[in-house]
Amino acid sequence: MPAIDHRVGIRGSLHDIYTALTTDAGLSRWWTTDTEGAGGVGSIIHFRFNGGGPDFEVIELQLDRRVRWRHSGSMPEDWMGTEISFELIQADDQVFVRFRHSHWKTASDFMARCSTKWGVFLLSLKDAIETGAGRPFPHDVPIDHSE
Amino acid sequence: MPAIDHRVGIRGSLHDIYTALTTDAGLSRWWTTDTEGAGGVGSIIHFRFNGGGPDFEVIELQLDRRVRWRHSGSMPEDWMGTEISFELIQADDQVFVRFRHSHWKTASDFMARCSTKWGVFLLSLKDAIETGAGRPFPHDVPIDHSE
Repeated sequence: MPAIDHRVGIRGSLHDIYTALTTDAGLSRWWTTDTEGAGGVGSIIHFRFNGGGPDFEVIELQLDRRVRWRHSGSMPEDWMGTEISFELIQADDQVFVRFRHSHWKTASDFMARCSTKWGVFLLSLKDAIETGAGRPFPHDVPIDHSE
Repeated sequence: MPAIDHRVGIRGSLHDIYTALTTDAGLSRWWTTDTEGAGGVGSIIHFRFNGGGPDFEVIELQLDRRVRWRHSGSMPEDWMGTEISFELIQADDQVFVRFRHSHWKTASDFMARCSTKWGVFLLSLKDAIETGAGRPFPHDVPIDHSE
């Protein structure tokens, strides 16, 4: 099945990056400022963009190594059944974050748009850790004129 | 086979965007300043990044609509056999550029890295058209600390 893959390299600690992926405060720094519900396995995280947005259930946590979510609820419809994973890999002078949004039904225009947008948000995560200034929604970099 | 998909929306004319994808001067404004060989179907474009880089053969041109390349030569090895396409779609107040880099053998870490980097370069294309200031290599946005 089609998937979106990305990889960025961040100068920061494994734990700071893991925290940015597993807490409301951390996720609010790079994806959307309106994030609620992050917790242990089984928790449901509500990500909101002007009121609407996806929910994800946390389905796997390996401290400082791996985070995995399964889409929950019905918005956006094309994300139903999809999963997201973040793998953290320590290299010499950076931590690689390997991102995957998998189980898409088709490589639609919407998937292509989400692919570009995920890249923007992962660079926002990089900036949040390296400079303290991420660009979460509603401060995110626009990729088209439909936003 | 795994593929990289992106989509950006650009305020500009179909023809300006098509020119940015089909001429040395245009490609130099957003991918790499060291670009040579762009021409009609059958031409080989040499994209260089500090000396090395990929060659692509132009395999399809539909004026102001579609551009397709097939990888040529042996660098980088993982790109051998891959193809790249750009579709231009006029919408109300923007032109969507649908990008696809297809025929990857595996969804490797290198593919994930290229996916993020293609997003950065497509936003560079957007900026080149909208503001006149793209960020082609060597002025591109870094996505890790290996560059």
